[in-house]
Amino acid sequence: MDPSIPAQIEEQRAAQVPTRRATVPAMEDRLYRLHPALDQGFVRVIDYMGDDAAIVQAARVSYGKGTKAARDDAGLIRYLMRHRHSTPFEMCEVKFHMKMPIFVARQWIRHRTANVNEYSARYSVLDREFYVPKPGNLAAQSAVNNQGRGATLEGAQAAEVLEILKADAARSFDAYDHLLDAARGNLARELARMTLPLSTYTQWYWKIDLHNLFHFLTLRVDPHAQYEIRVFAEIMLEVVRDWVPAATAAFEDYRLGSFHLSAKMIAVVQAWLNGKAVDQATSGLSKREWAELKAALGQ
Amino acid sequence: MDPSIPAQIEEQRAAQVPTRRATVPAMEDRLYRLHPALDQGFVRVIDYMGDDAAIVQAARVSYGKGTKAARDDAGLIRYLMRHRHSTPFEMCEVKFHMKMPIFVARQWIRHRTANVNEYSARYSVLDREFYVPKPGNLAAQSAVNNQGRGATLEGAQAAEVLEILKADAARSFDAYDHLLDAARGNLARELARMTLPLSTYTQWYWKIDLHNLFHFLTLRVDPHAQYEIRVFAEIMLEVVRDWVPAATAAFEDYRLGSFHLSAKMIAVVQAWLNGKAVDQATSGLSKREWAELKAALGQ
Amino acid sequence: MDPSIPAQIEEQRAAQVPTRRATVPAMEDRLYRLHPALDQGFVRVIDYMGDDAAIVQAARVSYGKGTKAARDDAGLIRYLMRHRHSTPFEMCEVKFHMKMPIFVARQWIRHRTANVNEYSARYSVLDREFYVPKPGNLAAQSAVNNQGRGATLEGAQAAEVLEILKADAARSFDAYDHLLDAARGNLARELARMTLPLSTYTQWYWKIDLHNLFHFLTLRVDPHAQYEIRVFAEIMLEVVRDWVPAATAAFEDYRLGSFHLSAKMIAVVQAWLNGKAVDQATSGLSKREWAELKAALGQ
Amino acid sequence: MDPSIPAQIEEQRAAQVPTRRATVPAMEDRLYRLHPALDQGFVRVIDYMGDDAAIVQAARVSYGKGTKAARDDAGLIRYLMRHRHSTPFEMCEVKFHMKMPIFVARQWIRHRTANVNEYSARYSVLDREFYVPKPGNLAAQSAVNNQGRGATLEGAQAAEVLEILKADAARSFDAYDHLLDAARGNLARELARMTLPLSTYTQWYWKIDLHNLFHFLTLRVDPHAQYEIRVFAEIMLEVVRDWVPAATAAFEDYRLGSFHLSAKMIAVVQAWLNGKAVDQATSGLSKREWAELKAALGQ
Repeated sequence: MDPSIPAQIEEQRAAQVPTRRATVPAMEDRLYRLHPALDQGFVRVIDYMGDDAAIVQAARVSYGKGTKAARDDAGLIRYLMRHRHSTPFEMCEVKFHMKMPIFVARQWIRHRTANVNEYSARYSVLDREFYVPKPGNLAAQSAVNNQGRGATLEGAQAAEVLEILKADAARSFDAYDHLLDAARGNLARELARMTLPLSTYTQWYWKIDLHNLFHFLTLRVDPHAQYEIRVFAEIMLEVVRDWVPAATAAFEDYRLGSFHLSAKMIAVVQAWLNGKAVDQATSGLSKREWAELKAALGQ
Repeated sequence: MDPSIPAQIEEQRAAQVPTRRATVPAMEDRLYRLHPALDQGFVRVIDYMGDDAAIVQAARVSYGKGTKAARDDAGLIRYLMRHRHSTPFEMCEVKFHMKMPIFVARQWIRHRTANVNEYSARYSVLDREFYVPKPGNLAAQSAVNNQGRGATLEGAQAAEVLEILKADAARSFDAYDHLLDAARGNLARELARMTLPLSTYTQWYWKIDLHNLFHFLTLRVDPHAQYEIRVFAEIMLEVVRDWVPAATAAFEDYRLGSFHLSAKMIAVVQAWLNGKAVDQATSGLSKREWAELKAALGQ
Repeated sequence: MDPSIPAQIEEQRAAQVPTRRATVPAMEDRLYRLHPALDQGFVRVIDYMGDDAAIVQAARVSYGKGTKAARDDAGLIRYLMRHRHSTPFEMCEVKFHMKMPIFVARQWIRHRTANVNEYSARYSVLDREFYVPKPGNLAAQSAVNNQGRGATLEGAQAAEVLEILKADAARSFDAYDHLLDAARGNLARELARMTLPLSTYTQWYWKIDLHNLFHFLTLRVDPHAQYEIRVFAEIMLEVVRDWVPAATAAFEDYRLGSFHLSAKMIAVVQAWLNGKAVDQATSGLSKREWAELKAALGQ
Repeated sequence: MDPSIPAQIEEQRAAQVPTRRATVPAMEDRLYRLHPALDQGFVRVIDYMGDDAAIVQAARVSYGKGTKAARDDAGLIRYLMRHRHSTPFEMCEVKFHMKMPIFVARQWIRHRTANVNEYSARYSVLDREFYVPKPGNLAAQSAVNNQGRGATLEGAQAAEVLEILKADAARSFDAYDHLLDAARGNLARELARMTLPLSTYTQWYWKIDLHNLFHFLTLRVDPHAQYEIRVFAEIMLEVVRDWVPAATAAFEDYRLGSFHLSAKMIAVVQAWLNGKAVDQATSGLSKREWAELKAALGQ
């Protein structure tokens, strides 16, 4: 990373000016700072619009600020979240500067309701930065789930895997340098980049409204999300807790910590509550659904 | 309008707190104030995110602020606007509170890439507020264009039209009151509203990014736009000039003041420049295109 | 309604040509027909793209059609629905022609992820068609819920309400006719329309993908949705059952017939299953949530 | 490529059934076939909805098909295109199955108003397929434009560049195989993929409406677009010409072959037409704008 960056960030943080806009001190404190993610990535909050009261203000289409009492605001926010009245949450917006491996960026970009400016490898030369997992994150392929991770690799096997990841990426960056070198390959940047691995770090500015950010977080802090994107989602969840605490509490109750009962699951729970025997085979649930239902309800 | 509103607005404007975010003094000055539109409508700026430098910062995916010199920022912004690099303009966002007749709101809502919270006539009772045009805006139906306005109505005809518009709306509001009255109609609000005219005022919070706002303005400050929505667009254009002057200048050069030459029009202009005769019949242009081309180029 | 319309519809239905595209006989049968809705509205299916197998084909990014067995397709579709893998459902698309009162259209248009072409009252004159509820649908304002309907109005009160709705709309259409009449008001169409009531019928072409249609249906076949839009949603649900039966069955299990347990509700259900006493006051649930939880689980 | 694919495609093409929907014979002929792109990529049309008449039908919100005369349809379509009435074009939809290098897919996915299902390298193992440019497409880095291509590399330099691209990708795929091998690396697929180069081929189903496809084509058949994505755009433009010939002709006149005069450019053209001298320095145009204006108008 360019050694002048900490000074640039400090310069951004130094200046304060008065504003009449909705302002959240905890977000002001986070502004511009690097929140590290993975080995070389980060999340920086660049700007934000709105706060908990702005959600209430929009829901009420009111002239003044939210309600008089923060307690009433929280109640209305819970109601809005529960009944999926999503538009008031869209009235808050946040902008991040982030750096992540390209294979993470490729998952991320599938969330279309956001604004993105990515660093251009057609126009600029990419730095020699690529993701190498920590040994504790070297998961084996799951034997039972095509899309899953199994146990953590250990010992010589883990060491060999890490060595391959590093050596292959290093060789690819050597090829990239050679291809770009005006005295050697002199290849156009837009072509030379194709030799780089998917572990290469990229960066972008990313702006999203709170409703769509909550949707992103629901999918990406989930245990089924790939670890490497979950790391970023968890940082953003921390940020959101500081920014809109009432909305985030409602989100954690009604979304993150919730469980969705299908029509077939409702019938099973009713049977349980009525003391009737019911088993997976006759429940209409798949084995996986059955197991998840039991786990969710502590049965 | 509720007489407590000016005091609520002043309360919003009174408080200032320090922020590290990008801030635009001219927008701070506009915040929360009522900018009147039509006879009872308005535009209020509730919040904004970003400034000209934020466009540059996103386009560069940079750690610090825009370029060192405002002059360089303006040059890059012109380049981005010209080459339709729209994503950096999406990094600025603005939130309005607005009040307009329902028939205007119905045109407006067709712009889908915005966030909206509208006052609910299912939940609340609408105030007795409806649009009555000023005499100078009472346009006759165009005789040549189904979608157009002709000359302005005058004298007794204008007076009668105004009288009909007022009287019919007043009667409809009387019916609404009767239907809602618990001792008389006692009809559900969500049904009673159906008797109200399309001239009834509604209001909403509306949030949009700068790229999509420019697109809205291109279509709605155009002389072909209906006068009643153009009034709102022109106020927003004034706001945008204060907020992001460099971006707005580029927008006015490359969009608002521009002219789009079709392939067939290019051939005509080339003929003109080469001193060759060309007429509408052989140009492949419609009469209307031909007239617009000549008008645009002063021929 | 223009008396030539049935013949136009029959002309559309008469022609059949061979295609290699995914085709659903039950949808072919519905094509172009009027499915009546409310007193003068309708839903017509104009076109569709894809079927259940197309969902599977996209999920697998496969070269051929879905799986060999319809049974396997249904299983994969259930998996996709359950895990909110929404993109394969977006691969099916349907286009409707519909006619509904303006106050219904105004709710409807808030679903932004659809394509719409509405009949233009700037360009054309609207027919004298407005919604009048059937007596059984004349609901009183709820005494407990601002947004709700109470008991059905009856007797003289109902008769008076109906009379007001009809008479006021008729008077407004008379005013509209007068304003438009070239020999009288001669007012521009775009202005004259403002006198029309929100009960006036409009029509549009509306195109949407299956994922977003399911989202629409979740919100609009819900008992909390206003009756007048629910009528349309229920017709579309019938259409969808014919079109993509496996996807609709999954939708009905995992969405329509489901119940969402918040984190606080999970704790209550766990207590019940463990035979522990728990009451609303200590549960952290609101009274309304408590009642809904009990109703959902038959307690 | 799996050798069973041609047979799967033939199976898809073999079956024809009758339909009442709008059908385009030239599209039927293209359905499912592989249109090759780059060395190992392709474009396949999987489905389509609508035709030229469907654009007119939606614009008119009519009960029957388009106008009686194809000539009138074309005239209305030209009018809609010229006045940027985009919604009728959104009423046509097309679905492709495509295969392209990942660095191309990354540019492509920035067009957000489309539906995408991409082959999952979390779930599946990627085939050993990567893009190697033809010698004639090995462009040097432009000396004057960071984002541009210069002359074509030749001789030994070209040979070396090709060798590096091939060898590096081959080594990376060897590493991928090693990492995935259960007896060696046994690494989870979602991690092993990160070693693959950006030249690796991926594939997806991609569905988009005609308005947004035209916007995509405007940007991607442009000479400034990277060659490797332009190849795909040009194939799609051929497809669209077959599908909606009147809309495509309007698109080519008003978009592809058009030139956009900024306000400053209008002043220059007016001066030229009036025989007044004007030069770049005083025109307010940049050198590049000046050159483009002269080139566009043959001066």
